[in-house]
Amino acid sequence: MKNVEHIGIAVRDLEAAEKLFGTLFNTQPYKREAVASEFVETSFFQINQTKIELLEATNSDSAIAKFIEKKGEGFHHIAFEVEDILSEMERLKSEGFILLNDKPKKGADNKLVCFLHPKGTNGMLIELCQEIKKPHL
Amino acid sequence: MKNVEHIGIAVRDLEAAEKLFGTLFNTQPYKREAVASEFVETSFFQINQTKIELLEATNSDSAIAKFIEKKGEGFHHIAFEVEDILSEMERLKSEGFILLNDKPKKGADNKLVCFLHPKGTNGMLIELCQEIKKPHL
Repeated sequence: MKNVEHIGIAVRDLEAAEKLFGTLFNTQPYKREAVASEFVETSFFQINQTKIELLEATNSDSAIAKFIEKKGEGFHHIAFEVEDILSEMERLKSEGFILLNDKPKKGADNKLVCFLHPKGTNGMLIELCQEIKKPHL
Repeated sequence: MKNVEHIGIAVRDLEAAEKLFGTLFNTQPYKREAVASEFVETSFFQINQTKIELLEATNSDSAIAKFIEKKGEGFHHIAFEVEDILSEMERLKSEGFILLNDKPKKGADNKLVCFLHPKGTNGMLIELCQEIKKPHL
């Protein structure tokens, strides 16, 4: 694991959370991004090398809506940047971790991502992520 | 906020968690430290500029024991490094955040720390921390 790439926080009201965390961090979010496949709208803060990603559900089928219903707002996941997501997925699978997706999928912020099941990780939803490199022109 | 200094994870069994996260991160914890005043034993991993702090309660009065009883193992707090903890405490108090201690207290890892009440921070326990500087000899 190269870096704590971001920390995901489940929120009910993205606009209110942007204000709250903007005041807490004394800085403004630098972008919003919808992830249609996951039914979420996200907002990002940058704190040195780590991002804080606020996640609001855009409908009740979203994992974020279900999470908030069950556990309330707060910590949702932690994402680690990896050099090579395929080899890390293979390594962790062989170590007995449960991958929530067999192949890397497209996440927010131009990343390939894979989630690990919280049952195998002390109750924490862990994301592996790797930047999608643009082809050289 | 200068940096995500560390992420605190509540665990039932520190030794088992050290093995689990050691395998996950593909690295070993670099130190253990007891914080007697908080009734916790901690273990630290370093992932680039951020630490992962595993926390095990050493008795049932510990906030960690109560946390696990209520919410289970997992994310416990996130700690942000600040330049000047006193001025940040003052700023956040004046913004309406609820400080859990009026004065900075001594935490693990040679830090002055202050916690913010999760009620004012979207359900998340937030720690401010500042390195205790050694006097020049």
